[in-house]
Amino acid sequence: MNLTESPIWQASAQLQIDAQGHLRHFLSIEGLNRRIITEILDTAESFAALSGQTVKKVPLLRGKTIANLFFEASTRTRTTFELAAKRLSADVLTINLPSSSTAKGESLLDTLRNLEAMNIDMFVVRHAQSGAAHFIARQVAPGVSVINGGDGRHAHPTQALLDVFTIRRHKPDFAALRVAIVGDVRHSRVARSQIHALQLLGVGEVRVIAPRTLLPRYLPDWGVRVFTDLRAGLDSVDVVMMLRLQRERMESAMLPSGLEFFHFYGLTPEKLALAKPDALVMHPGPINRGVEMSSEVADGAQSVILEQVTHGIAIRIAVIALCLGSHGAKK
Amino acid sequence: MNLTESPIWQASAQLQIDAQGHLRHFLSIEGLNRRIITEILDTAESFAALSGQTVKKVPLLRGKTIANLFFEASTRTRTTFELAAKRLSADVLTINLPSSSTAKGESLLDTLRNLEAMNIDMFVVRHAQSGAAHFIARQVAPGVSVINGGDGRHAHPTQALLDVFTIRRHKPDFAALRVAIVGDVRHSRVARSQIHALQLLGVGEVRVIAPRTLLPRYLPDWGVRVFTDLRAGLDSVDVVMMLRLQRERMESAMLPSGLEFFHFYGLTPEKLALAKPDALVMHPGPINRGVEMSSEVADGAQSVILEQVTHGIAIRIAVIALCLGSHGAKK
Amino acid sequence: MNLTESPIWQASAQLQIDAQGHLRHFLSIEGLNRRIITEILDTAESFAALSGQTVKKVPLLRGKTIANLFFEASTRTRTTFELAAKRLSADVLTINLPSSSTAKGESLLDTLRNLEAMNIDMFVVRHAQSGAAHFIARQVAPGVSVINGGDGRHAHPTQALLDVFTIRRHKPDFAALRVAIVGDVRHSRVARSQIHALQLLGVGEVRVIAPRTLLPRYLPDWGVRVFTDLRAGLDSVDVVMMLRLQRERMESAMLPSGLEFFHFYGLTPEKLALAKPDALVMHPGPINRGVEMSSEVADGAQSVILEQVTHGIAIRIAVIALCLGSHGAKK
Repeated sequence: MNLTESPIWQASAQLQIDAQGHLRHFLSIEGLNRRIITEILDTAESFAALSGQTVKKVPLLRGKTIANLFFEASTRTRTTFELAAKRLSADVLTINLPSSSTAKGESLLDTLRNLEAMNIDMFVVRHAQSGAAHFIARQVAPGVSVINGGDGRHAHPTQALLDVFTIRRHKPDFAALRVAIVGDVRHSRVARSQIHALQLLGVGEVRVIAPRTLLPRYLPDWGVRVFTDLRAGLDSVDVVMMLRLQRERMESAMLPSGLEFFHFYGLTPEKLALAKPDALVMHPGPINRGVEMSSEVADGAQSVILEQVTHGIAIRIAVIALCLGSHGAKK
Repeated sequence: MNLTESPIWQASAQLQIDAQGHLRHFLSIEGLNRRIITEILDTAESFAALSGQTVKKVPLLRGKTIANLFFEASTRTRTTFELAAKRLSADVLTINLPSSSTAKGESLLDTLRNLEAMNIDMFVVRHAQSGAAHFIARQVAPGVSVINGGDGRHAHPTQALLDVFTIRRHKPDFAALRVAIVGDVRHSRVARSQIHALQLLGVGEVRVIAPRTLLPRYLPDWGVRVFTDLRAGLDSVDVVMMLRLQRERMESAMLPSGLEFFHFYGLTPEKLALAKPDALVMHPGPINRGVEMSSEVADGAQSVILEQVTHGIAIRIAVIALCLGSHGAKK
Repeated sequence: MNLTESPIWQASAQLQIDAQGHLRHFLSIEGLNRRIITEILDTAESFAALSGQTVKKVPLLRGKTIANLFFEASTRTRTTFELAAKRLSADVLTINLPSSSTAKGESLLDTLRNLEAMNIDMFVVRHAQSGAAHFIARQVAPGVSVINGGDGRHAHPTQALLDVFTIRRHKPDFAALRVAIVGDVRHSRVARSQIHALQLLGVGEVRVIAPRTLLPRYLPDWGVRVFTDLRAGLDSVDVVMMLRLQRERMESAMLPSGLEFFHFYGLTPEKLALAKPDALVMHPGPINRGVEMSSEVADGAQSVILEQVTHGIAIRIAVIALCLGSHGAKK
């Protein structure tokens, strides 16, 4: 069975895409299709031009209100969504909800119903629990959109899209590409979203490189090639996507130390030389220098890490505009 | 002596209404009159239409600056005032002042003078102490307005107005109504404002239902009918306004437990059946489900609780616009 | 050697002023010249008029994004910069960075690169460490401006400019003036910036009045007259600029108590009478009443303390507009 035909994928598709094929919520790569992802990337391309101009603001969403609903702190994600919303001239509310005050599902629902009653048009949700954004999307009124800004270990789909957007700008022929995802795949919501996005866009070969303790068990189903040896895995790849290592996990049994991780899985110029000469180096940030990669690599000529940040704004602008635009058309 | 002829009412009127009869500050229902309240409700009605349209923003207050001056945390009140200000195109500053840094009245005044010197046009004040908003209104320069966003146990007048606005939308003939206010009347700033607003608008009969320990002593003067038995009090009423019970008070001597309160004073479908068949159920939020009312009632067909939230934006827009509009006319 | 010919001044000049003589960053009075300071004051004058009008907002920086990068909390400075940015129609992001998360210089740089990659046009930096704003200005991309909102004990240059702006409005003939700076000169970033600004504008005589323990050692080089006796120092001055005393230092060995400080160095009507009859009284705020000055003086006819706050907005508008305007011209 094809991944996109699985019941989970179908259920997620029904939630995210409306009857006319427009984007209604943006929750996970699972449930999207190649046409929608390409539409988001193309829309982001048209907004990416904006950033270079003197006036970076468009009145597209003037009068719309977007609430950043953060159950988990994240300055970076909050900032990029706020910037994206403001460049579309939307009003932005930031609502930080400590998880304590919403311990019971019941009170989360009441909070949501109250915010909806204030005529908020979109919720950007960040939550420590997997599935939180889907749960909220299932509850909101027809006119309201939900964007997943990261939920537990599940998904971080705008990150995955800014990654494939960055790859496309440099290497648009996806079928010809070999892409390696390196590091703590097991705990990474980014990795999961990245693998789905790369496969939907028809990337030739997706590799996963990690120590056995940081590999999830269900990986084989995804149709990726698994390596536990970094050198073997990097051979002839076009793109190296490093994952962030959660330092707090290093103290646990899983990892002896950041130094030892760097020794075996850290990207250095010497190891990078095993990839293609023009291979891109990516990282979702913030980098642990000397753990996931050396500074020579992070700041080197092949690094597109800061481009990823810049494209993150364009992708978020595109996702917001498409979700709210489809509602606009329906009204 | 009529309540509105008392010296306190007169002093509050002089502070809130200018020589031309326009709203200058909005501090408490005491001091307002039926004409002004009706003007606010009618203005809110015209803005309520806005929320349903695609562009919910009007340029009425472009260039004006409104400061949310919060001495006491309140996400909900802050959010609704911020939304209201933004829909009028005003700039909003949120200034959280821990009470410690303003322990001395002197330093509160200095803080105020400094903000005034920054040419702020309006202060929305939230303070744990009764009378704080009146105090500040007495100090500000002629061009500056003050709105009370809740002060101690004294008043929460925008809440009272959104309540009567919600009632008017369903049951516009106030003289024919029987309205019951149920719960912790003693500690509620909402109840006090509600009673004054209902009486000013000529509601036929206002009832207060509470256990003896949660009734204030001065109630008899207000001309309301007092009940300690919920069933007796609900008989044939048109509107049931539930108050929020502060959970922190349940541990004190006043209340044995939330469960016991619910047994005697919690609203259930069975008790609600004693009211008129089309009686409205209201609550200022957030609801303690299973304490003030059961979920069947909170989410039932007679509940207008989420409508109250929606109308809260329209009422705040109206109050802000009328206060700043009257200054604009004078300048 | 003239102060402005020192190597430090020259290096700071190269950083702050571009090849066309336009303001690029605003970091310290050191490095600026009389022409630039006068240009800022004149620009502020044109914006000061705005505050009195109904619409105080101009679309000059619509589409620009300004990030308030606060490594040290400061409600007052943050608020004034936010107001200034909004009156120019810029979008404002507030980013509070606890110093812990940026303990290593490396991670500060990464934070900065990331924000730059989001196409932010200006950083307003507040940092506990002297030189932080200069450090950041040296790192940012050509199109990005940095404004120093206060760094350690080093400088608070917008404060110094709003002070000279306030003086100029009352006493425009700087050469004829005697100005006294009174209080904790040793720990004051304000004093240092004030002295440089007054000298650049050609003030006839600058005096510094402080107890020996609160005088810095390098003062004699600045060409100011030093007094340890308040009465002697106040004799015939045109302006008295009081400094704020950090109460936390009073418990240390340096100062016995606020009361004792007030006895010797606090400004009272009786001591103020030693200055010229129309002498201005200034203070950067917030005032410790009964420590630096009595309330009679703070609220008296000669006090221009609240004017300083008002002019602070105009000065910040001018500095932001000139920095971003010069980039605009170059692009």
